[in-house]
Amino acid sequence: MTALRLGIAGLGTVGAGVLRTLEQNSAMITARCGRAIQVVAVSARDKNKARNFDIKNLQWVDDPLALAGMPNVDVVVELMGGDSPARQLVETGLRNGKAVITANKALIAGHGMMLTQLAEAKQVVFAFEAAVVGGIPVIKTIREALAANKISEIQGILNGTCNYILTQMRLRQMSFQAALQEAQTRGYAEADPLFDINGTDAAHKLAILAALAFGTQLDLNAVSAEGISGITPDDIIFAEELGFRIKLLSVARHHEYGLEQRVSPCLIPLLSPLASVENEYNAIQIQGDAIGHLMLVGRGAGAEATASAVLADIMDIAAGRHALPFNVAVSALQKCLPPAAEKSRSSFYLRLVVSDQPGVVADIATILRDHKISIESLLQRGRAMAAGVPVVITTHETMASAMQQAAAKIVKLPVVLEPPCVLRIENN
Amino acid sequence: MTALRLGIAGLGTVGAGVLRTLEQNSAMITARCGRAIQVVAVSARDKNKARNFDIKNLQWVDDPLALAGMPNVDVVVELMGGDSPARQLVETGLRNGKAVITANKALIAGHGMMLTQLAEAKQVVFAFEAAVVGGIPVIKTIREALAANKISEIQGILNGTCNYILTQMRLRQMSFQAALQEAQTRGYAEADPLFDINGTDAAHKLAILAALAFGTQLDLNAVSAEGISGITPDDIIFAEELGFRIKLLSVARHHEYGLEQRVSPCLIPLLSPLASVENEYNAIQIQGDAIGHLMLVGRGAGAEATASAVLADIMDIAAGRHALPFNVAVSALQKCLPPAAEKSRSSFYLRLVVSDQPGVVADIATILRDHKISIESLLQRGRAMAAGVPVVITTHETMASAMQQAAAKIVKLPVVLEPPCVLRIENN
Repeated sequence: MTALRLGIAGLGTVGAGVLRTLEQNSAMITARCGRAIQVVAVSARDKNKARNFDIKNLQWVDDPLALAGMPNVDVVVELMGGDSPARQLVETGLRNGKAVITANKALIAGHGMMLTQLAEAKQVVFAFEAAVVGGIPVIKTIREALAANKISEIQGILNGTCNYILTQMRLRQMSFQAALQEAQTRGYAEADPLFDINGTDAAHKLAILAALAFGTQLDLNAVSAEGISGITPDDIIFAEELGFRIKLLSVARHHEYGLEQRVSPCLIPLLSPLASVENEYNAIQIQGDAIGHLMLVGRGAGAEATASAVLADIMDIAAGRHALPFNVAVSALQKCLPPAAEKSRSSFYLRLVVSDQPGVVADIATILRDHKISIESLLQRGRAMAAGVPVVITTHETMASAMQQAAAKIVKLPVVLEPPCVLRIENN
Repeated sequence: MTALRLGIAGLGTVGAGVLRTLEQNSAMITARCGRAIQVVAVSARDKNKARNFDIKNLQWVDDPLALAGMPNVDVVVELMGGDSPARQLVETGLRNGKAVITANKALIAGHGMMLTQLAEAKQVVFAFEAAVVGGIPVIKTIREALAANKISEIQGILNGTCNYILTQMRLRQMSFQAALQEAQTRGYAEADPLFDINGTDAAHKLAILAALAFGTQLDLNAVSAEGISGITPDDIIFAEELGFRIKLLSVARHHEYGLEQRVSPCLIPLLSPLASVENEYNAIQIQGDAIGHLMLVGRGAGAEATASAVLADIMDIAAGRHALPFNVAVSALQKCLPPAAEKSRSSFYLRLVVSDQPGVVADIATILRDHKISIESLLQRGRAMAAGVPVVITTHETMASAMQQAAAKIVKLPVVLEPPCVLRIENN
């Protein structure tokens, strides 16, 4: 059988990983596909950049869009990231009837429906396993291995930067800022880490997984996202005392009244499987009606791990295995109904810093009672902190809206010295 | 597109799960496959057995082998288990050019090479995801998602019965026998649990995974298997004190000098991800050169979880996705070289029961020294046990053969009252 010929745009971390792995494992890859996989052309920003692999035998094109038009390219592999020209390349590739592979989560989260419809119209493969948690094969697992399952819930640790920061804050009693710097030094965080730490990156991944798992239209606007910059080392210590660990949790949950899609720092039980997923590791726990719980844990980023996912998509093409990107045609996806905000329920963790004087707890408890919020536990710490003393409250399950309103009132109490930290407790 | 038509042999736990899930999720399954999946005929031991699902609209055949000859059956689904007539059914189905799906691990472990070659010759699909750890999609993951990876190691908790027993022994300080009875009461252990508790069941699964992952001929004789019946509640307590948990671990590891395939109770670090996989749950940790570590955790048995895997195989056929069962043709699999026994190294846990008199430790330490085994820690417990006192020793990494010889000498010391318990410590 003839070789499958690739045109690769982008030779950064992931592109380099793909070229290295293809070269290192070429005999094995050929044997497993029944045909060779051959890179015929590459494009990147700077031809002359020092690279630790050889590109002199590959055709170089300055304009990545040219790859989409080359007759000897079967598969366009978009590894540039960003919006433009990545989007144009993917679109032109599909329009020209080429298979397209991408690792670009923002592109799929923003334009996945349109691009997938284009691929369907052209009857070409469009695949993006690497766009969601790098090496962990969650897309293939949901799409194929769990195809017979009605999925009711996905919970995941989908951002390695945040997980690394929260782990280091806990293990070394570091501040958020210090842990972030450490993550940057180690290459786990970008120079501009905003989209990682504010939950945007995880929201992109969650939106893609939710559309696939629940058969709903991908709708990034239906995902609420909250980051981890408000978490203090004290919160982490209090959570542990209460039997919980704080994780940036991505949750997509099917309710009768809509689809909940949420990225937020949460308290999860210390003994839950996700609690032991630490540092830069990612994990996804899927609940299906037949399979029960299935959890996948692995590296969500990094050159070789992400290359593993890109190459799996490519090898599926080489072996003739095709699947619709969202399991059914885009036209068959249901409208994504965001859940009615007034129906969202949870138990909560509430940490306040208050001035140390009599009656504070009574004031707070009164506000909670007025909002029909029932206290499960209350911890008041000694007088160690100069500026005030922390009070930590956990609640029984309550309306999220009631909790929001109560927090807004509590912050106005003169004895409350800082905005409260309000976190969901995910018990299941 | 026309429906994919199934003939199902075996309506026990798994068969019932397949029929129920197919019925419950039929609209979704049809949408995802682009065609209906239809059961046209079934066979089981007793037509009139009370069942909680309806078979009156299905054609009943008394002889399961007849399914392999029916012109309106596209896929033969073997869910009877056991050797005969399961083997004849699978073989006849393949010979007649039908796709065959089975959940029969003993059949694949024993005859997988022959049956796969037959499927290759007939160019039909032969798949058995459900044969290895039920619902967890480890075969698809290794075969497709990790296809670009050279795999160096698989470690797994592949038997839910043993994992349940060890968990309950720890949590409730039960004896092995009491925990086994509990497992039988709860349906986690067969009436005859021998193949579960002596490691045979896990060895079957490991042999299948190793062949797929390492591209070697499936060779059940190359797998060493040891069960858990020698583990006492004391061993579990000592292990925890030393920072370890005891698990029945299945390990397949690539060495320069051969392929290590071993099922045995091992001490693994309390903080290792596998240590937190408890009760009836199964897990597999795979190490690939590109992906690094990937772990899958889920239910390895049960009606619906196993049905999920059977149906995934069927839906792959319906959607036209094909893969070679062992990723390359059987003729391309390498001969499986068992590792030279004299090269196997490990650190060890050694628990003795000795009579409480001076000089005991010196006698034991001398034997270990004579075999060049270096002691890492030694715990000697008080005088609680009437019959003797336990001595627990952990060693630094040493030759497994040296440990065996030393243990054989130690057991002959007059002060040693019981055969020693010798367990590997898996630190990585």
